Amino acid sequence: MISALDVSEWFRKLQIEISGELEKIDGSEKFQEDEWFRPGGGGGFSKILKGGTVIEKGGVNFSSVHGESPEFLKKSYSSDQNNKDHFFATGVSIVIHPVNPEVPIIHMNIRYFEMGNKKWFGGGIDLTPHYIRIEDAVFFHTELKKMCDKHNPGYYEEFKKEADDYFFIPHRNETRGIGGIFFDRMGESSLESLDNIFEFIKSTGLSFIPIYGELIKRNKDIAFDENKKKWQSLRRGRYVEFNLVYDKGTRFGLETNGRTESILMSLPPMATWEYDYKPETGSREESTLLMLKKGIVWIKK
Amino acid sequence: MISALDVSEWFRKLQIEISGELEKIDGSEKFQEDEWFRPGGGGGFSKILKGGTVIEKGGVNFSSVHGESPEFLKKSYSSDQNNKDHFFATGVSIVIHPVNPEVPIIHMNIRYFEMGNKKWFGGGIDLTPHYIRIEDAVFFHTELKKMCDKHNPGYYEEFKKEADDYFFIPHRNETRGIGGIFFDRMGESSLESLDNIFEFIKSTGLSFIPIYGELIKRNKDIAFDENKKKWQSLRRGRYVEFNLVYDKGTRFGLETNGRTESILMSLPPMATWEYDYKPETGSREESTLLMLKKGIVWIKK
Repeated sequence: MISALDVSEWFRKLQIEISGELEKIDGSEKFQEDEWFRPGGGGGFSKILKGGTVIEKGGVNFSSVHGESPEFLKKSYSSDQNNKDHFFATGVSIVIHPVNPEVPIIHMNIRYFEMGNKKWFGGGIDLTPHYIRIEDAVFFHTELKKMCDKHNPGYYEEFKKEADDYFFIPHRNETRGIGGIFFDRMGESSLESLDNIFEFIKSTGLSFIPIYGELIKRNKDIAFDENKKKWQSLRRGRYVEFNLVYDKGTRFGLETNGRTESILMSLPPMATWEYDYKPETGSREESTLLMLKKGIVWIKK
Repeated sequence: MISALDVSEWFRKLQIEISGELEKIDGSEKFQEDEWFRPGGGGGFSKILKGGTVIEKGGVNFSSVHGESPEFLKKSYSSDQNNKDHFFATGVSIVIHPVNPEVPIIHMNIRYFEMGNKKWFGGGIDLTPHYIRIEDAVFFHTELKKMCDKHNPGYYEEFKKEADDYFFIPHRNETRGIGGIFFDRMGESSLESLDNIFEFIKSTGLSFIPIYGELIKRNKDIAFDENKKKWQSLRRGRYVEFNLVYDKGTRFGLETNGRTESILMSLPPMATWEYDYKPETGSREESTLLMLKKGIVWIKK
């Protein structure tokens, strides 16, 4: 049987491990750590790295909060007869905005939640390349599939579809990036044991460095100029639009008086908006836009 | 009796007049005009100016749309027995992001709405200085009060409070700027004639150029450096946060398949986010933050 404390401790260790590895990869800057406390119970550690050689701005956050359940939380579980007085939630959230526009933005979140006898895990990893390289997209999805397959042969396909549906910007008719995997409320209906799901969550968390490390290695030394930085900045504008308009975690956090600076660490260091911008025909920018669609099958059989 | 067509035509003329005056003030760049059509009926003209001497990015938009009422619109009027099959809406929206951080961002919106026998006006003007100058804030509010007083001695105080409440960013515990006036559903309950309210709406629209023109004249030649541009960019980040997370017009537009490029013309050309940024003690940046609060009385009696 897993315990909330075990999960929370494992998450905190993962935060320290991943931020340490990212510092090695960056090679110049270190994460600044801020501890914060939630008035109602619990708190977290925010780790932010700014102005690195590889990472322009990156956040690796850990939180573990508990206490009396806020009203909105009780309401969202109003259908069951569970005791909803107290809740517990712990998670790790990562967003990395790289310096080089050829290196993709990455996001990972894993979380565990308890209220009464309800317990579940959620999370995902998704990639937002400024320029989509097909071989990198195939690598990313293949590695996720291999990781998923070790736990359940149905996971990848199901969670890949959920990522496509979730990381979508309706007003742009664009996906945020090339997706990845996304899952929520795993274990709530107890078809699988929470212990097994926790093993899958661990695999997800541990896959971050091997996958993103490889993507950085492949692309960090590719030359870039002002035009590529400009495109990166426009794509970061879309990232802002998704996170502030649609992302449930961001809106949930802002609406429930979370720590604003930790929640908004996901925003890029800089973003631009240009009225009615259209990339040149035949450009890499255009081909990237053409691939920001749901349902692309990256792994050929 | 006013007619929807009269209002719409007056709004379109105002758009042309204001954009023409702004071109004269800028002195270098012209507005690009795009006409667009709404599949369900009506459309609009978006006017955008980019890269001017005074205006870095500005939008002056006009729209006049009508047709079958969307479901969400019917629902928001579900309490009355009105015929809700058709609606009509017209408005002018302006957001100007100046080059010089000493010149404030301004926003104005005036709009008219009809559904069955329900008819009302809404709108407002508000100012977002990157650096608050008290004499400019007093000028801004005094001019708005003079304009309001000509129509109703109670307007200014009521609408100033509504602006404070509306242009507020809860997760930052900051107002967006120094407020102004904001009003909605004027004439719906028919305490005043729609003709009188239309006269007030016209005054609001016509006050834009004299007020903003003066604020530009006062501040456009003040020297600025990279530090001021950096602060402007951080403040623009807050503008993005307000517009994407809270602004009803923006969210309404995005959720109802409005023309994205016209809706998001309000976003700045560039914005930055810096983790846990704190201005220096005693700086103009700090004193600006201290004044981004609700309820400041700018006009001394």
